[in-house]
Amino acid sequence: MERKIRMGMVGGGQGAFIGEVHRMAARLDGMIELVCGAFSSNARKSKASGKALFLDSKRIYKNYEEMMTKEAQLPADQRMDFVSIVTPNHLHFEPAKLALEHGFHVVCDKPVTFTLAQAKELKKLASRKRKVFAVTHNYTGYPMVKEAKAMIAAGAFGKIRRTVVEYPQGWLSTRLESSGQKQASWRTDPKKSGKAGCMGDIGTHAENLLEYVTGLKIKKLCADLNIFVKGRPLDDDGAILLELEDQAKGILFASQIAAGEENNLRLRVYGEKGGLDWSQQEPNSLLVRWLDKPTEIRRTGVGQQYETTQHAIRVPAGHPEGFIEAFANIYKNVALTINDLNQKKKPSSLHLDFPNINDGIRGMQFIDRLIASSKSKQKWTKF
Amino acid sequence: MERKIRMGMVGGGQGAFIGEVHRMAARLDGMIELVCGAFSSNARKSKASGKALFLDSKRIYKNYEEMMTKEAQLPADQRMDFVSIVTPNHLHFEPAKLALEHGFHVVCDKPVTFTLAQAKELKKLASRKRKVFAVTHNYTGYPMVKEAKAMIAAGAFGKIRRTVVEYPQGWLSTRLESSGQKQASWRTDPKKSGKAGCMGDIGTHAENLLEYVTGLKIKKLCADLNIFVKGRPLDDDGAILLELEDQAKGILFASQIAAGEENNLRLRVYGEKGGLDWSQQEPNSLLVRWLDKPTEIRRTGVGQQYETTQHAIRVPAGHPEGFIEAFANIYKNVALTINDLNQKKKPSSLHLDFPNINDGIRGMQFIDRLIASSKSKQKWTKF
Amino acid sequence: MERKIRMGMVGGGQGAFIGEVHRMAARLDGMIELVCGAFSSNARKSKASGKALFLDSKRIYKNYEEMMTKEAQLPADQRMDFVSIVTPNHLHFEPAKLALEHGFHVVCDKPVTFTLAQAKELKKLASRKRKVFAVTHNYTGYPMVKEAKAMIAAGAFGKIRRTVVEYPQGWLSTRLESSGQKQASWRTDPKKSGKAGCMGDIGTHAENLLEYVTGLKIKKLCADLNIFVKGRPLDDDGAILLELEDQAKGILFASQIAAGEENNLRLRVYGEKGGLDWSQQEPNSLLVRWLDKPTEIRRTGVGQQYETTQHAIRVPAGHPEGFIEAFANIYKNVALTINDLNQKKKPSSLHLDFPNINDGIRGMQFIDRLIASSKSKQKWTKF
Amino acid sequence: MERKIRMGMVGGGQGAFIGEVHRMAARLDGMIELVCGAFSSNARKSKASGKALFLDSKRIYKNYEEMMTKEAQLPADQRMDFVSIVTPNHLHFEPAKLALEHGFHVVCDKPVTFTLAQAKELKKLASRKRKVFAVTHNYTGYPMVKEAKAMIAAGAFGKIRRTVVEYPQGWLSTRLESSGQKQASWRTDPKKSGKAGCMGDIGTHAENLLEYVTGLKIKKLCADLNIFVKGRPLDDDGAILLELEDQAKGILFASQIAAGEENNLRLRVYGEKGGLDWSQQEPNSLLVRWLDKPTEIRRTGVGQQYETTQHAIRVPAGHPEGFIEAFANIYKNVALTINDLNQKKKPSSLHLDFPNINDGIRGMQFIDRLIASSKSKQKWTKF
Repeated sequence: MERKIRMGMVGGGQGAFIGEVHRMAARLDGMIELVCGAFSSNARKSKASGKALFLDSKRIYKNYEEMMTKEAQLPADQRMDFVSIVTPNHLHFEPAKLALEHGFHVVCDKPVTFTLAQAKELKKLASRKRKVFAVTHNYTGYPMVKEAKAMIAAGAFGKIRRTVVEYPQGWLSTRLESSGQKQASWRTDPKKSGKAGCMGDIGTHAENLLEYVTGLKIKKLCADLNIFVKGRPLDDDGAILLELEDQAKGILFASQIAAGEENNLRLRVYGEKGGLDWSQQEPNSLLVRWLDKPTEIRRTGVGQQYETTQHAIRVPAGHPEGFIEAFANIYKNVALTINDLNQKKKPSSLHLDFPNINDGIRGMQFIDRLIASSKSKQKWTKF
Repeated sequence: MERKIRMGMVGGGQGAFIGEVHRMAARLDGMIELVCGAFSSNARKSKASGKALFLDSKRIYKNYEEMMTKEAQLPADQRMDFVSIVTPNHLHFEPAKLALEHGFHVVCDKPVTFTLAQAKELKKLASRKRKVFAVTHNYTGYPMVKEAKAMIAAGAFGKIRRTVVEYPQGWLSTRLESSGQKQASWRTDPKKSGKAGCMGDIGTHAENLLEYVTGLKIKKLCADLNIFVKGRPLDDDGAILLELEDQAKGILFASQIAAGEENNLRLRVYGEKGGLDWSQQEPNSLLVRWLDKPTEIRRTGVGQQYETTQHAIRVPAGHPEGFIEAFANIYKNVALTINDLNQKKKPSSLHLDFPNINDGIRGMQFIDRLIASSKSKQKWTKF
Repeated sequence: MERKIRMGMVGGGQGAFIGEVHRMAARLDGMIELVCGAFSSNARKSKASGKALFLDSKRIYKNYEEMMTKEAQLPADQRMDFVSIVTPNHLHFEPAKLALEHGFHVVCDKPVTFTLAQAKELKKLASRKRKVFAVTHNYTGYPMVKEAKAMIAAGAFGKIRRTVVEYPQGWLSTRLESSGQKQASWRTDPKKSGKAGCMGDIGTHAENLLEYVTGLKIKKLCADLNIFVKGRPLDDDGAILLELEDQAKGILFASQIAAGEENNLRLRVYGEKGGLDWSQQEPNSLLVRWLDKPTEIRRTGVGQQYETTQHAIRVPAGHPEGFIEAFANIYKNVALTINDLNQKKKPSSLHLDFPNINDGIRGMQFIDRLIASSKSKQKWTKF
Repeated sequence: MERKIRMGMVGGGQGAFIGEVHRMAARLDGMIELVCGAFSSNARKSKASGKALFLDSKRIYKNYEEMMTKEAQLPADQRMDFVSIVTPNHLHFEPAKLALEHGFHVVCDKPVTFTLAQAKELKKLASRKRKVFAVTHNYTGYPMVKEAKAMIAAGAFGKIRRTVVEYPQGWLSTRLESSGQKQASWRTDPKKSGKAGCMGDIGTHAENLLEYVTGLKIKKLCADLNIFVKGRPLDDDGAILLELEDQAKGILFASQIAAGEENNLRLRVYGEKGGLDWSQQEPNSLLVRWLDKPTEIRRTGVGQQYETTQHAIRVPAGHPEGFIEAFANIYKNVALTINDLNQKKKPSSLHLDFPNINDGIRGMQFIDRLIASSKSKQKWTKF
């Protein structure tokens, strides 16, 4: 790499949570430099946020429109390479579109857009503009998730039969949004969050993890969505039966009223010869079960591991790598890909191993179909 | 107790697995004495089995019909008090019926009968004859399962919202029945096992555990049953969405093709204020989660526990109690109840805390309804 | 087996804890029948205890002297085969001696005697009388402990280098004995417990487990014993550095003031090629670690296991076996050995796999040497 | 903070491991900017390393002497604030001394120096120059370590009685150094590593963690150091009995031949009322045990936590924070302290919560005393 890749940010001003996660992830490997931002729709707040980040005040913008225009006018050796969009769901589409139109690559939080149509439009635009479009389904950034994917792809377990993916959280067990808590408020508001609540927020992570690891797409689903907290307009819990490609079956369970749970994302996959079990809260261990042989605890960095796994590891075995490191693996690969492109090289598959606009579209379709299924009296709804 | 309670056994001859489990369970507390048996439909095998159990040869019978007749003719201070039936599913009904008709109490393996009608008939008969009819849904015998039930009943978690019960096994991942393995053979044979395979064998345990602990009955279900191993006539895997009483929801997952799993029965229940998590393979720990307080590991015998829990514990905390102890808790309570009845006392609720014919009927209804649901294109089938 | 092996018991009357554990262990496999007992030094209490166990009143004795005399006079087909001694430490020697002198086999709780000299005397006597003398170091009865021993014996880990055995309990964190609690009272009383408190009670279990599994004897030790609870006359905590045969090293830690611990006996052994890790509170799992290969979770009954392991398993994999089952494995092997002897057969090594008087003597030597080391200013004391 | 704190680095060139860990830690929070370095004693390698880090070529120095001189000559608004020293042990003292003499704050890897005398000299110098001197005992940076310390300080467990700290690794089970592996080579070479091998490398981490969390200093020790791999000149394993202040006792175990272990640093502390248990490989959980109450799993970010804990957390509960985050907590506090000093403010205790030269001296004394104890025939050696 000749120089750091330059990042601008939309959203993530003071008080936000996910913006700082994106920034830590972007900083970790020293490949990316935050050079500008429109951190809030409130210009004063944007300024204050940018200043706290030690940015050049000229590159702290009042809004994203200004940022796109002004940055595009800067000399090539100064202007940002990509935009990171970390606003609530309903504010993804416009800045993403504008960024692409101005020739910037995009990293966008998930779900990628408010509607499925918007996601498809962004795909077309990114393709036409030949720009990178990453979507931060960050849980696929863990080394042992990559090991799991690689083991399945290599046929270690034979044909996949049964999958179970679950994501219980408990933080919305009470009507937290009525207290004005920022994270809860927009996530439970259909105008900001979209058609789905819990399922959009964390169900899509589960869906993405399942499809990423197994390499199998969902073909049909049967959804039972629930609102357990009175007065809440969107689902806060749900269970979905799945039919995947190749006759595999699945259960997807996500809940934000699973009292006492933190972020207990877990994936189990069972094939003909064995299976695997991974939990986000202990992400450096991958349980691998076999027919009639001892269960193995595969650990980040122990023994021979696949190239994609190794590429995602920063410290020796036994030094736990966590959420930020996994998140940073997405930013690292985005930076490496942009660098490849800047140098007119074809990005390697190792660098391209990050969730992109296609994953974003799958997520939007998933939301769309499960809402349909939830309303249907029929057992199965096609994906 | 004035004397040991006398037990006769139907089935459980040499080569059987579950018969010896029942006998170990019956022996453990020294309250029950095995006095007779018809251990096999093969008279010679029955004799050999009884002899190996040190029984008086006069009380090793050629078949259960003979056993019922002959035992009934013995003096009251010699004849058995109850019959334990440990044959395959299709051979439960006849001996159970005959036992009741001859005035014996019954302990029967699960699922209690081959058809739902038979189960209902047994209930009527047991009621008319005023006999104890226990069904060995043995997993409810664990102390921490009883603690879980008592906590929920006491309202510790508020209203129950979401439940997840699962029972993955992997032993039928290959077509084991074609090798002649005895346990696999009858369980996968509709003539012996009944309408359901995996769901009858272990799904009913999951169903029983869920209803026992939560105190909530299943009202509707949406089943997706699968046969993953080619040529097998009965389900070897399935996932079911549940609606329970009081607006609670549930997922029930059972599989015998979850490669590498042993007997990973696990129940999670989430209420308004917290939730619990229990796994059969580490049965002496009960995880209790709370809104915004540290998760607790409640352990068998540690601290203040409910009376039903204490009644189910034999050794001090930290000395693991296992499967046989849990199973023995059913036999212990059956023996104590029979003793109460023998002494013309009304059995205490503590003694009556064992699964009975009503649980058996629930299990048969569960099988019946999930087969119906599995065939239906409608999402929900009433229980 | 032609008949059940007949057991008499000394101690274990109402209110005792360990007596009923021995009885449950003896009952479990249906090979042993309790036929007589002297359950208390209080004759009335002995009677009441025996009656509650449904014994023939003629065989409930006033004291163990009477029991030995009277049982020896009974016809061979009635009298007990062996005596189980479950009294406090200071009351082991006399009944054990008397039993051997009257021609009975003995099962004795640990530490086997009050003094080392007594233990040696019993060894001579048992040898002269050709009687079985078992000592209930029960933790070696777990299947995965046997698997661990067999793996090491087979050289799976190469030369053993480092061992760590620990047994923290917390139940004596307060001065429980001053409340009159029976278990605490005699264990902390040098007149009943002997030279050592915590180390005699549980340190000897740790020592026995270590030597059993590794096959290596302790050669030197360096002990630091502590009394943390004021006014207690015996050690309630201690840490010991060990040198074992073959240049291996060890740490032995035992404590009864490790607040909040139950019975967290754990053994780790590291050799040149790998190591193992076993914990009594989750006894059905054995962690096996390797150089640069995934850690394995070996589980009771899963996959190919050694013959001694299989011999110690009663139920299929995934059905947890606990403390009583492990304890029962000692009784089972004692019964099988007595049966072999009764039938004039040489007992197989499989049957002889129970702790015997030699283990008892090692335990007494261990106590003797660690007390010496504890008082010494020298680092190392020879074993 | 008005501006980023500027860091220079000594060591950590291409091929090194720990240098990049320091840089990731320094980057994570965006408070620190790497501005210069002397990354290798080989000038060409230093240049290449600095270039790969996108440094201004003028500030990539040939050696640390040049760096100190040149940086000191730069204007105050450009020159580095502090030096991070990440060379092997024998190369800590000289650059640290020079840095202090030139008026720079210092962050130094551990053990802080080659000899105890050097450490004491640095302390005097830092004190005279009023400079920050941090030592990267990074394991104290974990949030749950801080929670543990705060709980003990608040008296949650009463008087501390028994402690056990252990740090088993397995990576030096074979003679890896003979293969030329860089990390193994200098760590096993007395000319580079100092008097101790395993104990200097990881034993000092265990010692630091123990003293940090309990607030108790070691007063006496009894060490048994071992060399298990033939031909290795320094200890690769050791066990130490400890007497701490206030009559508490301890065991410290560290090994680099514990085959199959990764970095299993674990601390247990037992007091009168309860105890705690923390393991580095699952650092977001802190087990808290109580007398006769359920064990608690305290988790990073769940419920009410101490201010020092909260200050060390970056993401919401359930998103695992790992090794780099803990390491970064040291850099964060160093940066905040330097910022306080730059702004002529007295640093808050919250900012000063990082290991400093006093910890470094304790570590050197620990090595010194345990080597003495190891050679002594006396049981106890004063600290």
